[in-house]
Amino acid sequence: MQRSYKWVENTLNEYMQMTKQVMLDYFPDKEPQHYLYDLVSSYPNRTGKGLRPGLCIATCRAFGGSISSVLRSAAAIELFHNAFLIHDDVEDGSEFRRGLPTMHKEYGVGIAINVGDAMNVLSIRPLMDNLDRLGSTLTWLVFAEIEHMVRESVEGQAMELGWVRDNVCSLAEADYLRMILKKTCWYTCMHPCRIGALIGSGGSADLDSFNRFAYYMGAAFQIQDDALNLEGEHERYGKEISGDIFEGKRTLMLIHLLNNCTAAEHEYIREFLSRPREQRSMEQVGQVHDLMVKYNSIRSARSTARHLAGAAMREFHLAYGKLPDSDDKRLIENIILYMIERDI
Amino acid sequence: MQRSYKWVENTLNEYMQMTKQVMLDYFPDKEPQHYLYDLVSSYPNRTGKGLRPGLCIATCRAFGGSISSVLRSAAAIELFHNAFLIHDDVEDGSEFRRGLPTMHKEYGVGIAINVGDAMNVLSIRPLMDNLDRLGSTLTWLVFAEIEHMVRESVEGQAMELGWVRDNVCSLAEADYLRMILKKTCWYTCMHPCRIGALIGSGGSADLDSFNRFAYYMGAAFQIQDDALNLEGEHERYGKEISGDIFEGKRTLMLIHLLNNCTAAEHEYIREFLSRPREQRSMEQVGQVHDLMVKYNSIRSARSTARHLAGAAMREFHLAYGKLPDSDDKRLIENIILYMIERDI
Repeated sequence: MQRSYKWVENTLNEYMQMTKQVMLDYFPDKEPQHYLYDLVSSYPNRTGKGLRPGLCIATCRAFGGSISSVLRSAAAIELFHNAFLIHDDVEDGSEFRRGLPTMHKEYGVGIAINVGDAMNVLSIRPLMDNLDRLGSTLTWLVFAEIEHMVRESVEGQAMELGWVRDNVCSLAEADYLRMILKKTCWYTCMHPCRIGALIGSGGSADLDSFNRFAYYMGAAFQIQDDALNLEGEHERYGKEISGDIFEGKRTLMLIHLLNNCTAAEHEYIREFLSRPREQRSMEQVGQVHDLMVKYNSIRSARSTARHLAGAAMREFHLAYGKLPDSDDKRLIENIILYMIERDI
Repeated sequence: MQRSYKWVENTLNEYMQMTKQVMLDYFPDKEPQHYLYDLVSSYPNRTGKGLRPGLCIATCRAFGGSISSVLRSAAAIELFHNAFLIHDDVEDGSEFRRGLPTMHKEYGVGIAINVGDAMNVLSIRPLMDNLDRLGSTLTWLVFAEIEHMVRESVEGQAMELGWVRDNVCSLAEADYLRMILKKTCWYTCMHPCRIGALIGSGGSADLDSFNRFAYYMGAAFQIQDDALNLEGEHERYGKEISGDIFEGKRTLMLIHLLNNCTAAEHEYIREFLSRPREQRSMEQVGQVHDLMVKYNSIRSARSTARHLAGAAMREFHLAYGKLPDSDDKRLIENIILYMIERDI
């Protein structure tokens, strides 16, 4: 049954608020507040879509688990996500995050790195506190999931940063998909679903059965995110428009453009990307953007995202099909389309 | 019995090499090697003194524990230490680390942050692998020690970064000692001793009994480190000479100087510290250094370090006195004096 996107948004928001409450419970009310504990709530207080806790909680409930059994794990994932965003913004030289200046733009690189490190360590205690509720075996299994999640993320990040550093201009779509599998999909979809299923099933679920579904969904989500960066309006999307072009990020659109433009255009783009960010002009960014329009790079990427969402739909039925009908099961199914049709 | 410093150095080095071997076993031999797994061994391969694994292993053995039971925990501490150094170097804008360019100077800020994040996550698996050897209770207790260790370190780091950012020039010795308690002492001495005792005693040792000893030792160590930064030669010490002055770090020497100089000199230093680093000249750094000599700030700090080492000696007998004599017990006692008399 198709439910409205409003319902999807509201339910994700409801799960997000519950998760946020648990996160806040773990934020220390002590010194040093200035430049540390006052700042850890900065990114979580900026409205996100709540995809990660939503997938984690809904999957747990679809398996018959309770919200309270999974909330600490969802909070740990969300804490890691926010720590990752703070470091990612420094690493990419991003200026805005969800409509406000990035942490390092406001407080400097040093403090931003340290706040990210603090958020990472703050994610450990909720995972340790799982012990009372989940018992030793499940608690360790969740730990192992998180350890793998963080490891994949830094590997994906290293790939992307290396491409920018070496000004690699000869990538294929498969390279991009391998990178976002690591950088985005594991922590955004695969591990949230796996951890939700692990806890909801009491350890009996086949966690690998979620990998394909969540990979396709995560890839569709990331490509849509990158497309919105090129098309959205600042107020709605909350990042710099075309910030990804400024940063030289190897998005699917840029890779498509480099593989389809003329040799002269390729050289123009390569030279543009070889410059330090502060030597890239708004005019040049506009020209690269125009080339993406000319070669249908954005339309092509959106088409890829839709195909990936279609694949996610098919895999959804394999991964979740045998579970009894429930609102949470329907939520997950509806998230797939919502993610590629959203405009924020 | 007083043993030679050469014996102290050799034994620390021996324990360090064993720890390093375990660390290397946990470094993944997989992609992405370039910009990630090739780089995680960069800082560990630069020769350090091995204070942290040395204290951890020697304390474990002094309690009758085996090296093999504690090595994974020592490796996790050392991995965290190296991750902390990489991020600390970015945060302070340092140019050299152990005689070579810092990670971010060589590979850029983004890659350095990500390599530090990778080293942090690499420290988790050895702690999880403690389970087979130490059993569930001890493994969890070690985890809790590490969680506290990292938390204290980011808190101390936030204090120090905040002082630099706000150009605080009215600090007292007590502020400095509170900061290094958090930033240095917990992870350099207190938790290495506590974890060694925890494992060596099978959980029966009173861990808090090591706090005073290890705090005094850690503080003496840090002050000596800062004094060497002002006095050593580049080749021997492996950092920039007077790099701390360049960076505006609130060392005990700078705090002493600010509390003892004339109002005009205070204003000169304050103005110097208010400048962005690239606008601080070598000449100005030299003048601040000269003022430190004029007001005996370096000599005064060394005297404080000696008093702290004396206090550590007294506390050593309270913390370790009841243990039977052993080479490892003697090693720890000898480290105290070695740490403040070393010239590298």
